[in-house]
Amino acid sequence: MQLGVAKNSTMTERSIRACCLLKWLLVLNIICLISAQSTFFEISSPWVWTCKEKKCLRTRASETTQGQSNAVCKLTCYDSATLWPLPTGKTTLSKDISAFFANNVRVAKLTSNSSKTDDMLKEAAAIFTGYIQQMESNGLGGSTRDCSVSANTCASASYVSSEHLFNVEVIVTQNFTPLALDTDESYTLDVKTINSVTTAYIVAETFFGARHAMETLSQLITWDELSNSLVVIKDVHIEDSPVFPHRGFTLDTARNYMEIPLIKRIIDGLSYNKLNVFHWHISDSNSFPFVSNREPLMAIYGAHSARQIYRPADIQELVHYAQESKSFPNWTLQATLVLDGNGGPLYGMGDLILCLDEQPWEEYCAQPPCGIFNPINDKIYTVLSNIYKDMADLFQSDMFHMGGDEVNMKCWKEKESITQWLVDKGWDKDPNAYLKLWSNYQNQSLAKLDEAYGRNNHIILWNSDLTAKEHATNYLDRNRYIIQYWNTWNDTILKDLYEDGYKLIISNYDALYLDCGYGSWVGNGLNNWCSPFIGWKSVYDNSPRAMIENFKLSYNKDQILGGEAALWAEQSKGLAIESKIWPRLSAHAERFWTDPDTKWLAAETRMHMQRERMVERGITADPLQPEWCVQNDVHPVISNNNM
Amino acid sequence: MQLGVAKNSTMTERSIRACCLLKWLLVLNIICLISAQSTFFEISSPWVWTCKEKKCLRTRASETTQGQSNAVCKLTCYDSATLWPLPTGKTTLSKDISAFFANNVRVAKLTSNSSKTDDMLKEAAAIFTGYIQQMESNGLGGSTRDCSVSANTCASASYVSSEHLFNVEVIVTQNFTPLALDTDESYTLDVKTINSVTTAYIVAETFFGARHAMETLSQLITWDELSNSLVVIKDVHIEDSPVFPHRGFTLDTARNYMEIPLIKRIIDGLSYNKLNVFHWHISDSNSFPFVSNREPLMAIYGAHSARQIYRPADIQELVHYAQESKSFPNWTLQATLVLDGNGGPLYGMGDLILCLDEQPWEEYCAQPPCGIFNPINDKIYTVLSNIYKDMADLFQSDMFHMGGDEVNMKCWKEKESITQWLVDKGWDKDPNAYLKLWSNYQNQSLAKLDEAYGRNNHIILWNSDLTAKEHATNYLDRNRYIIQYWNTWNDTILKDLYEDGYKLIISNYDALYLDCGYGSWVGNGLNNWCSPFIGWKSVYDNSPRAMIENFKLSYNKDQILGGEAALWAEQSKGLAIESKIWPRLSAHAERFWTDPDTKWLAAETRMHMQRERMVERGITADPLQPEWCVQNDVHPVISNNNM
Repeated sequence: MQLGVAKNSTMTERSIRACCLLKWLLVLNIICLISAQSTFFEISSPWVWTCKEKKCLRTRASETTQGQSNAVCKLTCYDSATLWPLPTGKTTLSKDISAFFANNVRVAKLTSNSSKTDDMLKEAAAIFTGYIQQMESNGLGGSTRDCSVSANTCASASYVSSEHLFNVEVIVTQNFTPLALDTDESYTLDVKTINSVTTAYIVAETFFGARHAMETLSQLITWDELSNSLVVIKDVHIEDSPVFPHRGFTLDTARNYMEIPLIKRIIDGLSYNKLNVFHWHISDSNSFPFVSNREPLMAIYGAHSARQIYRPADIQELVHYAQESKSFPNWTLQATLVLDGNGGPLYGMGDLILCLDEQPWEEYCAQPPCGIFNPINDKIYTVLSNIYKDMADLFQSDMFHMGGDEVNMKCWKEKESITQWLVDKGWDKDPNAYLKLWSNYQNQSLAKLDEAYGRNNHIILWNSDLTAKEHATNYLDRNRYIIQYWNTWNDTILKDLYEDGYKLIISNYDALYLDCGYGSWVGNGLNNWCSPFIGWKSVYDNSPRAMIENFKLSYNKDQILGGEAALWAEQSKGLAIESKIWPRLSAHAERFWTDPDTKWLAAETRMHMQRERMVERGITADPLQPEWCVQNDVHPVISNNNM
Repeated sequence: MQLGVAKNSTMTERSIRACCLLKWLLVLNIICLISAQSTFFEISSPWVWTCKEKKCLRTRASETTQGQSNAVCKLTCYDSATLWPLPTGKTTLSKDISAFFANNVRVAKLTSNSSKTDDMLKEAAAIFTGYIQQMESNGLGGSTRDCSVSANTCASASYVSSEHLFNVEVIVTQNFTPLALDTDESYTLDVKTINSVTTAYIVAETFFGARHAMETLSQLITWDELSNSLVVIKDVHIEDSPVFPHRGFTLDTARNYMEIPLIKRIIDGLSYNKLNVFHWHISDSNSFPFVSNREPLMAIYGAHSARQIYRPADIQELVHYAQESKSFPNWTLQATLVLDGNGGPLYGMGDLILCLDEQPWEEYCAQPPCGIFNPINDKIYTVLSNIYKDMADLFQSDMFHMGGDEVNMKCWKEKESITQWLVDKGWDKDPNAYLKLWSNYQNQSLAKLDEAYGRNNHIILWNSDLTAKEHATNYLDRNRYIIQYWNTWNDTILKDLYEDGYKLIISNYDALYLDCGYGSWVGNGLNNWCSPFIGWKSVYDNSPRAMIENFKLSYNKDQILGGEAALWAEQSKGLAIESKIWPRLSAHAERFWTDPDTKWLAAETRMHMQRERMVERGITADPLQPEWCVQNDVHPVISNNNM
């Protein structure tokens, strides 16, 4: 295409003020110089993009009539546009686009069997149109389109009509039930364009499938800086559903407190990536920010400060935000306080805690402060029961995480009262005496949890000594307990759990602990325990099938419920956490939604686009390449790894 | 101290609504419950801190009469309060504090020899009082103090008087000159309290010393959540000046564009840490965002997009912001475009560039896109001259960085025109023919630079093949060129440069490249080239003296001008860069301001406080420890590094 002075096909922030032609270095170009009236320097790019062999190549505008903006090229050049995560079913995308303006978008029809679903669909539709308006506003440099005031915001390219309508129609067929492990998240999305009307048809079993479909639809739309308009792929058919039902992220708010608005931003990000579980590691030995109405002293003693707490009202607001509004994570609440090498040493809990702040700490716990619940003090079960009841009041999830990792039994072994208790039980000669004590604790606290919820939730535990090959099936019912697996991808602990028949959530730290690879906060400051840093490519290639087949076992997908990445917060707090989480968590999202046979290289271009999409929506996701490479579809691959 | 219902010594965000006494677990405590009128849960902490053996220990309020807030304990318990960087001269701090309110702070007297200094002092004073107001506002939970409206914001502790005055008086003795390598940055700061008036006296040779003194003074003040007031150390004497004159940070805005407001935030951070050089790596092979009035096509072709540019007005604003307002970095502008294995391949530059986008790229450059200036094309010197003139219009620094690293000569060697040129020169038989070509280029471009500036600036070059032992002194005048050293701390390249007598800026990548340790963007995604991630402790311990003495050479401090940490931006963009920079750059700041004989462990508590101070001022600095450890002065050190 040819750039011209009168044309609005420019990448400028403001209107063109003055342009002139210059001949320089044998190339004819448009340059817009500083206007006397403006402090803005306005330039028009000489570059357009052309699609060749599924790559978008930077091309001089003067040398092609097929030039597109980079965004439109990327939307139409690749097999799967810039969809993230990739749909798992039949996907047909036309190469043609329709241009439209945000104020012509209508969510024309919402049909469901329940008023609850209707209400939630309305909120989801508002979020969807919000995205569209934001894309347009960003494209216009923060202004809104008003053709009567500012001509440059109303495109004049031949394929843009300010009359083009964009309708969305949604049908949800099942009655409403809250998001759970067995929720149907499938959807079909069809986009059809007839003359000057584009209509998107969404059909889903549940609200949650419909919400995913809107997310997908938003990814078929982009801003086109050449026509100064939004564009959408004209004709689309997508059938989609996730491979794994449990696709999550664990956030630790105990080592360092995270503000509620920050958690909301993370939930937004989960929704952009079709992740559906926010696992809230709300307490640990470091702090107890959860304000329990029934046990208020827990937070008073245990919170880092009176400002760093989660009040019932805060949590209710967050649950509403997540379930009904912006996204819909399944609230898996982790009560790691319950029994944990790190759990329990809340100052002020008196005789409920043993070995409080014991030294040398490395013999008694994985990190200071040490302390462990006293499982033979019955008062502990009263306290737990009260906390579980408070949690049941706030979280209606069908899953509950009871923690259970990093239990260090040295403290128990040194306490005479516990030894005596084991003698009284007749367990003192048993080589597994302390595991039985632990199991006794686990059973008693589970009874309190069931009582609090009034039903049998799915229970999640971290793998631990209690879940080890020789013990697991003696202590933990495989029909009741789900094991969240955190060791490395090829550790035989995984093999054992799989062979024992436990359903598993994959959180192997060598791919999914996003806090790995920073300098250690303990000791000399060199690599922390789980170094190195995990690049997005490793996150992406973290395939459960590969893990299981690595053990020469036959892969039964149904035994893998899904995966959770985690950010443990020893060295994370505030907005800085976002670039640690994103876009690596997007890589995790595609692995567990799509579980592709391909590896990261096949996903790289879309990965960059998903990162840009999140940035456009306000998330401070880390870039993964120099922008030159992103713009030019360059994926440098060399063996000697010298970058 | 004893907490009581009527007392306002609370850590709450809002006023106490209702409190009651509960006996639970044998501990008597104050608990404030949810008020019927409020959605806020208000709790009063049972904890205070007491200073024992230079540690602040968490203590039950009921068990001591010496309890302080954590912040006040940290201000008064340690030898050097929470000052960062540590002063280098005589420092005397009383243990007593005075409490005051922000609206009683007056910068009572500013005395200097020039109106320019007066103006700058006024701006600096406004920044100082801004800090104080922000501390108070943060302490009050975002509200402002109005005793007539809300009693709880006006403290009633016996040592707080709402009448206590805080005056600041400043004397600057030299006439004004812009910040340069030989600027005197020393100051003395005295704080004296007589009855209900505290006065801070600042005496400095230059504005820049006075500005540092105000920064130091702000660090002697903290918010006390027990008295609900600001407090300042009552009696202080500090003599201070930096060990090294050049204390900088290099930001790469070429691999990924950084917005102007983001750069301003970084400059703010530099000022909080008494860093004085912002080295702007403004262009590279990846992009040319600098809008040159004389060579406008450079940005038109070379910027990532028309939005990702630095216009002259943007730069002027930034220079003003840095020099006169928020801080005062010395603007060392890097024109790496000049000659760089990465430099030059700007599409559209025609025959000025050789080997544009050559493949396989790894043979021709350190990262794509390849391309190198054609040093025998005279037009290049015209273009450079124009760009230098534009830069001279905008940057008045006494230093200029000409880049010069990662030159890959393979391209030149393959070009017949260059071979012929060497024959014509009679250099073709010379084993150093291509170095002579390079040197010829360097000399010609330096002549253009001097012409543009109308004076001889200090010139900085990265160490390279041209600076290698056998060549450096043949080509580069040690009185003119400063070498910025980027190889590892113990590489003999450093020894050679030191022995050759060059003045050096230390940027060894194994301590000062803040982009190290992330996943590689090239290839398999595992560690990038300069892994591992560099923890703050390594940054802190990066001693120039140790480097030189490691070679068994006698240490001549004057040959080390200072140090620069760097963030190369292949994988960095947007606000996410802040947590990569901070607080590690603070560690660098103390190393090059104070150059202490001690190592990181002696600085750890102050380091956490400096990080918190920056967060309070709005910077998203990464935390370095769980908050529990920060609050309890716990510095876990173990040998097996299992965190």
